[in-house]
Amino acid sequence: MKLALFAGVALLSASGLSQTFQRLGGCPELGCVFPPDQAEFLPGQYFDIRLEVHSPVNGSEARVGEPDPNFTFTIARKHRRSKPKKVTDFFKIKEAELEKWDFTWYEDLFAQDAKKPSLVRVTSKAYRRVALYEPGEYEAVLTYYNGRKTKATWTVKDLSVFRRAKNVVFFIGDGMTTNMITAARLIAHRSVNGKYQTKMQMDKFPVLGHQMTHSMDSFITDSANSATALYTGHKTTVNALGVYVDSSKDPFDDPKVETIAEIFHRLYPEAGVGIVSTAHLSITADATPAALTAHTRDRGEAGHVIDSYYQGLTNYSWTDWSGPDVLFGGGAENFLPGSRSYKGQDYYKLFKERGYSVSWNATALAQAPNDTKALGVFSVGVMAKWLDRNVYKDNLLKRHNYPDGSDKDAVDQPGLKEMTLKAIDILHNRSRRGRKGWFLMSEAASIDKQMHALDYDRALGELLEFDDTIKATVEKLRALGELDDTLIVVTADHGHGFDVMGSVDTKYLNEKDTDREKRNAIGTYFNSGLSQYTVQTDASLHYTDGVHFPSQWDPRYTLYQGVTANPDRRENFQVHKDGSRVPAIELERGSDDYYVNYKDAVSGFVINGTLPVADAQGVHSLTDVPVFAMGPCQEKFGGVYNSVDIFFRMADCLGLGKPKWRGPF
Amino acid sequence: MKLALFAGVALLSASGLSQTFQRLGGCPELGCVFPPDQAEFLPGQYFDIRLEVHSPVNGSEARVGEPDPNFTFTIARKHRRSKPKKVTDFFKIKEAELEKWDFTWYEDLFAQDAKKPSLVRVTSKAYRRVALYEPGEYEAVLTYYNGRKTKATWTVKDLSVFRRAKNVVFFIGDGMTTNMITAARLIAHRSVNGKYQTKMQMDKFPVLGHQMTHSMDSFITDSANSATALYTGHKTTVNALGVYVDSSKDPFDDPKVETIAEIFHRLYPEAGVGIVSTAHLSITADATPAALTAHTRDRGEAGHVIDSYYQGLTNYSWTDWSGPDVLFGGGAENFLPGSRSYKGQDYYKLFKERGYSVSWNATALAQAPNDTKALGVFSVGVMAKWLDRNVYKDNLLKRHNYPDGSDKDAVDQPGLKEMTLKAIDILHNRSRRGRKGWFLMSEAASIDKQMHALDYDRALGELLEFDDTIKATVEKLRALGELDDTLIVVTADHGHGFDVMGSVDTKYLNEKDTDREKRNAIGTYFNSGLSQYTVQTDASLHYTDGVHFPSQWDPRYTLYQGVTANPDRRENFQVHKDGSRVPAIELERGSDDYYVNYKDAVSGFVINGTLPVADAQGVHSLTDVPVFAMGPCQEKFGGVYNSVDIFFRMADCLGLGKPKWRGPF
Repeated sequence: MKLALFAGVALLSASGLSQTFQRLGGCPELGCVFPPDQAEFLPGQYFDIRLEVHSPVNGSEARVGEPDPNFTFTIARKHRRSKPKKVTDFFKIKEAELEKWDFTWYEDLFAQDAKKPSLVRVTSKAYRRVALYEPGEYEAVLTYYNGRKTKATWTVKDLSVFRRAKNVVFFIGDGMTTNMITAARLIAHRSVNGKYQTKMQMDKFPVLGHQMTHSMDSFITDSANSATALYTGHKTTVNALGVYVDSSKDPFDDPKVETIAEIFHRLYPEAGVGIVSTAHLSITADATPAALTAHTRDRGEAGHVIDSYYQGLTNYSWTDWSGPDVLFGGGAENFLPGSRSYKGQDYYKLFKERGYSVSWNATALAQAPNDTKALGVFSVGVMAKWLDRNVYKDNLLKRHNYPDGSDKDAVDQPGLKEMTLKAIDILHNRSRRGRKGWFLMSEAASIDKQMHALDYDRALGELLEFDDTIKATVEKLRALGELDDTLIVVTADHGHGFDVMGSVDTKYLNEKDTDREKRNAIGTYFNSGLSQYTVQTDASLHYTDGVHFPSQWDPRYTLYQGVTANPDRRENFQVHKDGSRVPAIELERGSDDYYVNYKDAVSGFVINGTLPVADAQGVHSLTDVPVFAMGPCQEKFGGVYNSVDIFFRMADCLGLGKPKWRGPF
Repeated sequence: MKLALFAGVALLSASGLSQTFQRLGGCPELGCVFPPDQAEFLPGQYFDIRLEVHSPVNGSEARVGEPDPNFTFTIARKHRRSKPKKVTDFFKIKEAELEKWDFTWYEDLFAQDAKKPSLVRVTSKAYRRVALYEPGEYEAVLTYYNGRKTKATWTVKDLSVFRRAKNVVFFIGDGMTTNMITAARLIAHRSVNGKYQTKMQMDKFPVLGHQMTHSMDSFITDSANSATALYTGHKTTVNALGVYVDSSKDPFDDPKVETIAEIFHRLYPEAGVGIVSTAHLSITADATPAALTAHTRDRGEAGHVIDSYYQGLTNYSWTDWSGPDVLFGGGAENFLPGSRSYKGQDYYKLFKERGYSVSWNATALAQAPNDTKALGVFSVGVMAKWLDRNVYKDNLLKRHNYPDGSDKDAVDQPGLKEMTLKAIDILHNRSRRGRKGWFLMSEAASIDKQMHALDYDRALGELLEFDDTIKATVEKLRALGELDDTLIVVTADHGHGFDVMGSVDTKYLNEKDTDREKRNAIGTYFNSGLSQYTVQTDASLHYTDGVHFPSQWDPRYTLYQGVTANPDRRENFQVHKDGSRVPAIELERGSDDYYVNYKDAVSGFVINGTLPVADAQGVHSLTDVPVFAMGPCQEKFGGVYNSVDIFFRMADCLGLGKPKWRGPF
């Protein structure tokens, strides 16, 4: 019966015209309930409720009449077989006022080409900051249009209230897949007759799992809604951070869900929270750190994100938030006073006034005090890549990206390892030398960014720095005596369809004239041979067995590697020594019609892409991504599960589930 | 010191000219020892030793003089610090006679184009069927050319002699990756707002691991040497089955290693062995089943493989072998009397004379007795695919592939599930109703074959049948009361660089005229939407919640999917209803110059490949592949490890390690 109901919903939600576009994700019927059917909650987790009733004016769902202003909403404890109660009685809150708006959408690509949008009129209500404490199943029912019903089953997880882990380090390799780890191992770790002589740190983790990354309303996710799933236990929509997406225009009125950082801070005010990323701390280009504190359906709202780090949400009463103990990364443009910061404010100044140390380079970071909160912003835009910081250093010059907004180059940037180890020093000190515990999220953001750019070497360099950071973190925690009390979880937020299929004789490829001849440089199976990246030559970089990076990045025989979704591009399978790759450019400025970048991989051959010609880069993929775990509760992370389960398992291990018999309302 | 030595070897082996081609895999120096450095052994596992000394006449390694006829070979127990002994004294065997031969190879593609091979003269000896019993480290040293030494460290594993598992089912999804499992889940299992309502059987397994598939001398493997690694614990060379590859011409004199089927049968003569595959039982096109009993470096020796099933090896004294209890699959051409069978023999007749029941179709298979050995051969060539057996059934007609060699079509073919369940019935019965235990290998071979053909839908159909087979096997073992005594291991032998990146509006793609316009039919991220394959329509196939396959294979919105290595081809992202896909064909017969098959995916757009133009299909990839385990010893299969460890962990669980203080020689 229950399954039948779900199946019914599944049919509707996936059937009919709409797939490329949807009227509203998570709302297949004309009545919408957010959080939607199948939502799961941590006991006591704050969330908002958004209800909508749609009246399509035209298009395949067109109906006569206004959207229902008199819809009702009830909640029942299914596990107690108790009667449905009006939402206001159930939560003991006052009635919300009725909102009205219109929106339009395209039913498919033909409608878009013909510029024939479908108009939808909406009535809506929102109930803010409620929580369910009692574990069990709840049935939420929206009734509208004289008896039509949209039902949602909500589940409050029955979790341990005992805190097994004092600290959690949550490592996210943005876009990292098993395939990429395999490739990184090949170029950085020596093997003899098929036996690796050293291992990746991730390979040494005792527990391995897979998580499903798909989102609520599309099977391919972006970093915003996948981060939301990992931090809140709620899958949502592409571009959304800590909210479900409603159909109103306002990017800040969408129904919120509380994040693990917010809950941890609320329940353990003396415990520390740290956020580290190699990309923007705002979400202009990277949503992973922002999703810990921001609540908006538009990841483009960079200024607001910085402000939400600083003081939490201002437009709604929500969880108390006084800023993280540690905030390290890039994206200075949103901290500097001016058009790109919230209300033009100088956030360096504001954070300083709050008692934060502010660091703009690696030297200052190392010297920053360990007893005060710390802000570190090390470049305008995304931070430098490992390959440029360590091998092709000239690429750091003429960037004019020093975080103070001056014209200087940010040449003294820390790596993920330096930022992460410093963060641990500060968190450990500030949580009364470890007595109160802490939560740290550390992200290798540019694995994803460089895969988007089809710059496989830079992406693998970032992955190897990520693994080196995890290794150094384990050693650091052991030295601090904190290893046994710290749960370390390493995972990704989604994948790219990347793999390695053989080797390329670049000397042969470069000397051949025609595209078809150049392809004969590729060796597969037996002809793939062995990795030459670990071979010491006179030209080699210094190689130690402690830190595993390639001895050379430009051997004669390189990797025949690629991704499954490309723009038009040229490939020569050689490292891009002049900086991050730009595979495709617009045929005419503003044409949105991308073709091979004539300056890229000039010795290679042209391959036409499969992506829409408006795409300049690669895209995310479906694959389950790996989860590596060690420490308290490690056993919870084995096997195959949903991305949201990572939130619940970390929360369980931190004892964040607080079942009370009555809400605070 | 030890590491330094290995590093030295690693340098040599990966440096210099040779990568596309190698003088001899596993022999970077002029002296060759097989098994090579880093080899690991099960206590008591039979193996051959092959020694070679090379004298290159020309090329980069050219030297003056003949290859050394007076080389010596010693072995020392490092773990006992004992003195090196001559191999003949160490094993108490008689001296082998000196062999001599020449061979040629190309140092790189330039040399191949110029037709300038390098000539190598060889002296060699082979010592047959020896074994090491005492766990520990051994140093094997070949001395040649007045004191030059090639050293190999051999390790005999210290394993349990206690048998924890009575039975083992070893499932191999040929070419199956995590990415493919994710895609199969998407098209066959319904989800509601991002929560799957049902799971794959593999997703339910308690323990997950990753295995590294690379081979001894190339980082990309084929199915022959990856199967050898899984069955013998020894990584070898592309195309090799149960042997290391020497440089002699004879495909049957290469140094052998004993397989898990041979060891299990030798130690437990009353226990059963079963072999099931959906492809050839010979190795013409599929090496996975053959590697359990065959020992040759040339997977093309189909006739010999069938004979080795029948009576084991005849050309050398080796382990006793009287044929498996169950042998089900395709490849009738190598059983029928004629040019393609060994010595033209009628193997149906020979197996019958041995007391085997012989089945040629699903009906006969179901009726075959459970108390006698069973041979089932169900088609000439590869067996029919799930998609053709169940959905596009006309594709079974006009194939003239009935296994009796007549002109009939093999329309009544069993699936992997029917073959596997019948195999369990027979093995259970014949091992005294389960008292003696059994080992079954069951392979879904066409996941790989259809990925090679870029026929993603057929490959996913095979994967879903594989998962359905695993599910039915668990239920069967529970019903027999054998589940708690059976170790079930599910893995793959290598990957393909496959992933899903979004959806395709096929209606839009088909109606557009230009290649660039057609690409706009692709929807990524939010526009990927939800899977329509699980949506019930009037045209839908019968869908039950018990067996999870798509409700429709040709929805309007299909998967935007692909692999990372392609020949030139056309894509329209639609199911190939007329049979397995042929993406590329020769421009001129015999030209070895492949281009888009003008008959394939005609409504799609052309994408040029990246593979050499002589390749008509996709190729294998590097990625680690998943391992799912349940039953006794399941805990041994978590984390990340080498493919050979799967052999040692299964052998450990079966108590196959037999440390004696003296060999039988």
